[in-house]
Amino acid sequence: MDQRLHFITFATPDLDRARAFYKDGLGWEPIMDVPGEIIFFQVAPGQVLGLFDAGKFDQDLGSGTRSGGVSGVTLSHNVSSEDEVSSTIDQLKAAGASVLKPAQPGEFGGIFHGHVKDPNGIVWEIAYNPGWRIDDDGSVVFG
Amino acid sequence: MDQRLHFITFATPDLDRARAFYKDGLGWEPIMDVPGEIIFFQVAPGQVLGLFDAGKFDQDLGSGTRSGGVSGVTLSHNVSSEDEVSSTIDQLKAAGASVLKPAQPGEFGGIFHGHVKDPNGIVWEIAYNPGWRIDDDGSVVFG
Repeated sequence: MDQRLHFITFATPDLDRARAFYKDGLGWEPIMDVPGEIIFFQVAPGQVLGLFDAGKFDQDLGSGTRSGGVSGVTLSHNVSSEDEVSSTIDQLKAAGASVLKPAQPGEFGGIFHGHVKDPNGIVWEIAYNPGWRIDDDGSVVFG
Repeated sequence: MDQRLHFITFATPDLDRARAFYKDGLGWEPIMDVPGEIIFFQVAPGQVLGLFDAGKFDQDLGSGTRSGGVSGVTLSHNVSSEDEVSSTIDQLKAAGASVLKPAQPGEFGGIFHGHVKDPNGIVWEIAYNPGWRIDDDGSVVFG
């Protein structure tokens, strides 16, 4: 199995609030939007974030269990400075996110960051990490 | 905020089992491995999957709550044929995953797929989707 992730899909109790948050609030452009079912946003080369109606998410998985909300995962968006961490968190808050951790030095990895939760419980970390970069070929480099 | 995801990080109760599964079982190459803390794998251009010790994940988030396991999210890996869905699920099973849904036609999106759970509760969907492709510039195209 190649070391490759193509879709990240979240159980989404309120798809209309997801659309309002990502599309109207943050200005993201969906590559597909099926009301009542799923909204897809491209979030990396060759990769899509899917916000999938929670009932249909459970049905698709077919394990007979209900997902019971999102937990145990964070998504991180890196920015270019400490100030941009703060301004991006402000932008997310204005779009409807709740702030879990205001911008501050992180405990791990020498970063400056903060966390917010989107209207469906997805946690985003906004981080400035001076020891991280993406090379021209897409390789991630630490240190 | 750019439409861009740089890290996906999971609360990982057993980092040694995660290493055994992804590195030894699937042959993935970590870009960083800090025993007892975190293992990073690059999974898309400019993007990293982080398996973060569950206690430190909670500490980093600092919200005073325990994550209580992973739920409400699936990761999908697309392959080129129905047969490859089955063989990839077999490979994951051999590496230590449990099968949640054997390879079969999906209920949504005209795909053929199955689901497995890794040793730390992360659900992977393995899918063949004839109506999906990645263009040379990294754009994802449906239909």
